[in-house]
Amino acid sequence: MALKWIECVPNFSEGRRIQVIEEILDPLRKTRGCHLLDHSSDPDHNRLVVTLVGEPEAICKALLEASKVAIERIDLNHHRGAHPRMGAVDVIPFVPLLGTTMEECVEIAHEFGKTFHRETSVPVFFYEEAALRPDRKRLEDIRRGQFEGLKEEISKPQRHPDVGPPQLHPTAGATAIGARQFLVAFNVNLKTRDIKVAKEIAKALRASSGGLAYVKAMGVDLSQRGMVQVSMNLVDFEKNPLYRVLEMVRMEARRWGVSVEGCEIEGVVPAMALIRSAEYYLQLGELEPSRIVELALLEMMKEAGKET
Amino acid sequence: MALKWIECVPNFSEGRRIQVIEEILDPLRKTRGCHLLDHSSDPDHNRLVVTLVGEPEAICKALLEASKVAIERIDLNHHRGAHPRMGAVDVIPFVPLLGTTMEECVEIAHEFGKTFHRETSVPVFFYEEAALRPDRKRLEDIRRGQFEGLKEEISKPQRHPDVGPPQLHPTAGATAIGARQFLVAFNVNLKTRDIKVAKEIAKALRASSGGLAYVKAMGVDLSQRGMVQVSMNLVDFEKNPLYRVLEMVRMEARRWGVSVEGCEIEGVVPAMALIRSAEYYLQLGELEPSRIVELALLEMMKEAGKET
Repeated sequence: MALKWIECVPNFSEGRRIQVIEEILDPLRKTRGCHLLDHSSDPDHNRLVVTLVGEPEAICKALLEASKVAIERIDLNHHRGAHPRMGAVDVIPFVPLLGTTMEECVEIAHEFGKTFHRETSVPVFFYEEAALRPDRKRLEDIRRGQFEGLKEEISKPQRHPDVGPPQLHPTAGATAIGARQFLVAFNVNLKTRDIKVAKEIAKALRASSGGLAYVKAMGVDLSQRGMVQVSMNLVDFEKNPLYRVLEMVRMEARRWGVSVEGCEIEGVVPAMALIRSAEYYLQLGELEPSRIVELALLEMMKEAGKET
Repeated sequence: MALKWIECVPNFSEGRRIQVIEEILDPLRKTRGCHLLDHSSDPDHNRLVVTLVGEPEAICKALLEASKVAIERIDLNHHRGAHPRMGAVDVIPFVPLLGTTMEECVEIAHEFGKTFHRETSVPVFFYEEAALRPDRKRLEDIRRGQFEGLKEEISKPQRHPDVGPPQLHPTAGATAIGARQFLVAFNVNLKTRDIKVAKEIAKALRASSGGLAYVKAMGVDLSQRGMVQVSMNLVDFEKNPLYRVLEMVRMEARRWGVSVEGCEIEGVVPAMALIRSAEYYLQLGELEPSRIVELALLEMMKEAGKET
């Protein structure tokens, strides 16, 4: 077996209607070769985040089916939620995992983008590594103004989609499709209801306003749970590991006498992202992957796979 | 391939003659399907500890060859070292790893024990989970008196071996073969030269004197490195995880105003043993293995193996 696996983390704009969520997940569960590793939906964000792992062909097939369900069932004109969004299928990143390169993921994104538009009529923007223009690298720039704002702006040349005519799908908006490195979604929940605290800490943490490199952060109100959250994406968990991010949040939170209620990782996480933090807190040296049973096993299985 | 992997950690009574060590390791390196993950030898202990991982058949084949080398090249009558021993091949534990159960490892131990004796004439004692008598569970009880003492005592019915006639091999002694759970060797180094501190903390930690269950501990003098160490075996790293053991050492060390210099893990360690501690310090909930990329991949590869 020549192993070729990718990760794909599609975000759908539905976090409230269980029935719709189940309908979207159904093809992702049933398609052979596409493994649904994780999914989480949240009424506050009104969003469904899915983690798929498997062969590119199987994932694209399942994803197209799931997207068609989302586009049929979600109307952005009536969608409210804490998370910015511009489409029923809001964003689809392809991530190299095992035996695949970034270049291949860029190609997969471009191919899938064309098929996606042809089959759904939803305009597509390519982002991050799959961006065709430098000003489309950042998802935030593509999504600026969200569904409501983009409805007007998309007619301007600089905001035309990469695939499809310059107008939003009337109910399903637009979709960003891209390729990127593995990303750890790390949230720190704070023992306060004061959203200002979360926003200030997010600002202190994120690279764009001077905090930690490779960290994106925003303050989120979890009103249903009676707390606020610093919601972060760690774009390079080796350069700025989890423990450093958490300890910096704790440090900043002391300014308001606020403590950490608990933390969450969304989706899936590489073992090493956790192990690097275990090493720090346990005062261990850096452990070679070959000394961690499962990582050594995986390496051996990959080697064995090459031989046959 | 239906994946069936075990760990095996044979201990040979040679830590000084590099040539002999290399001869013992040779078949363990060369046998297909047997993976040599780690080995360490130490002149003080005069002992070689090897970590093997792979398919039971391959491991047993390689191990028999390596054992024959050790039996031919090591004469216990001239062996001196800090570590208690009764045989050239002193102890062979089989450990369930992936797709194997403790029952299977007990069976492997019993089968291998018979083959081992037939091919080498060295008497065999079965220990821990593979013990045939309750008083043979503990290796320390089997090995009492070591090579020199057992030479006399083995003729007594209560010390007869489980396989073979009641007399030691004249130069290679006897071998203990068993099955046990995965064990994590965890050492905490202390910023003091006072061995009493390490001994007192070890006493406070170990289960046998009232500390933490599933923990064995002893104080060790690292005089060359100018510090002392609490050297521990965690027999069940799920019931008493690394972070709890370390925090308890820190807590006890405060009695003497001593802090922790650093920690070490010997040999190999399961990813989950480290991840459980990352979860604690990062205030994360318990992560399902399916949400940790490499563990999920391994699981899928096992499943894929079953289908074909």
